[in-house]
Amino acid sequence: MSDRGTTSEGPRLSRAAAHRLSLYLRCLTAWPSEVEKISSSQIAAAVGVSDAQVRRDLAALGHLGQRGIGYDPRELTTVIREALGTHRPWRVVLVGVGNLGRALLRYQGFRSQGFEIVALFDNHPAKVGESLEGLLVRPLSDLPAVIHQEGAELAILTVPREAAQSVADCLVQSGIRGILNFAPVVLRLPPHVPLVTVDLAIQLEQLTFLVQHAHETVSPPLDE
Amino acid sequence: MSDRGTTSEGPRLSRAAAHRLSLYLRCLTAWPSEVEKISSSQIAAAVGVSDAQVRRDLAALGHLGQRGIGYDPRELTTVIREALGTHRPWRVVLVGVGNLGRALLRYQGFRSQGFEIVALFDNHPAKVGESLEGLLVRPLSDLPAVIHQEGAELAILTVPREAAQSVADCLVQSGIRGILNFAPVVLRLPPHVPLVTVDLAIQLEQLTFLVQHAHETVSPPLDE
Repeated sequence: MSDRGTTSEGPRLSRAAAHRLSLYLRCLTAWPSEVEKISSSQIAAAVGVSDAQVRRDLAALGHLGQRGIGYDPRELTTVIREALGTHRPWRVVLVGVGNLGRALLRYQGFRSQGFEIVALFDNHPAKVGESLEGLLVRPLSDLPAVIHQEGAELAILTVPREAAQSVADCLVQSGIRGILNFAPVVLRLPPHVPLVTVDLAIQLEQLTFLVQHAHETVSPPLDE
Repeated sequence: MSDRGTTSEGPRLSRAAAHRLSLYLRCLTAWPSEVEKISSSQIAAAVGVSDAQVRRDLAALGHLGQRGIGYDPRELTTVIREALGTHRPWRVVLVGVGNLGRALLRYQGFRSQGFEIVALFDNHPAKVGESLEGLLVRPLSDLPAVIHQEGAELAILTVPREAAQSVADCLVQSGIRGILNFAPVVLRLPPHVPLVTVDLAIQLEQLTFLVQHAHETVSPPLDE
């Protein structure tokens, strides 16, 4: 993806750049609080991209840091969170409480990043009414009302492949603003509802691709 | 990432291109077997990238397709699988049989793409000896011997954050060729052992980034 310049709404970042910002944020979270500066080369080394890439990405967020001194870790954390939209909490519904849904419900990384799962849905009669982690599993017919009541903006979709598109359509009609999809299928959503699909087999395919080419010299994998 | 040209070992693809090839493969798998040609624009529409991007990616794999006629879906499937390394099966060990590990063990998408989980490991005394999906959970001390006996080449790592680096080191010492890591931590591996990390909170952060910028006009998200 190419750099698309800036607008009055702030810098436009590519998806690849947004992914690197998430990684920089992980590095900043682990940074010792008593050390008041962090350099682009320290971030670069921790994340595995080039120093120049870190400086380009951070320059796109505004005038940050001082040449030869580095960045203020707290300021950088704030600015990156604002760029990614995680400077405020997000309320999330989880649709599909099979094995993967239950694993995600208990996944500690969500809450620590400000994502709160506020409602569970499933259409399996044996699951509806069950209580998991203090939340009741509701039928899909409750989706529109509950999304409205709970002020949920995002949905995690862990339903079988065959059900994914119709549930996604229902989520869109219920006013959800974005979907994180784990079903191995290409979903069609209207352009105003962003979609991120995590296809776990694709992740393994990316690994076999790298293993097959591991003997070749390649540039840092996340650089553009 | 820039195109790195070709070598005698075949074309070098960027990680981003390899990811798009995986998506083209999903599209080809769903293509009706009685339709003997597929065009770059049909693939582009299904995957959500530009027509020109599809043609560039496929041109990097060799002289495929005929102008104005399209590609042979079976030939394309074969060539993409060879590029990704999934033209042959891979034997995989799963380390960490918590919620996420159990979900991945039952994830149907792995086997259909040629990934077979052949051994399970965990260090929790209550889990060692348990049988899951016909496989015995073994202690980590068995890793080197079992990886060797089973001819496993890849590992899926679903252990807690604190344990991830030491287990990864043990996997490398046991001769594993690549690791798919779900622990939210930046692992350090020697350069000959590729790593793909799936950080699930990062996937949600990418979604909030897109939701926050959904009102802006952007180019197809997977184009370079």
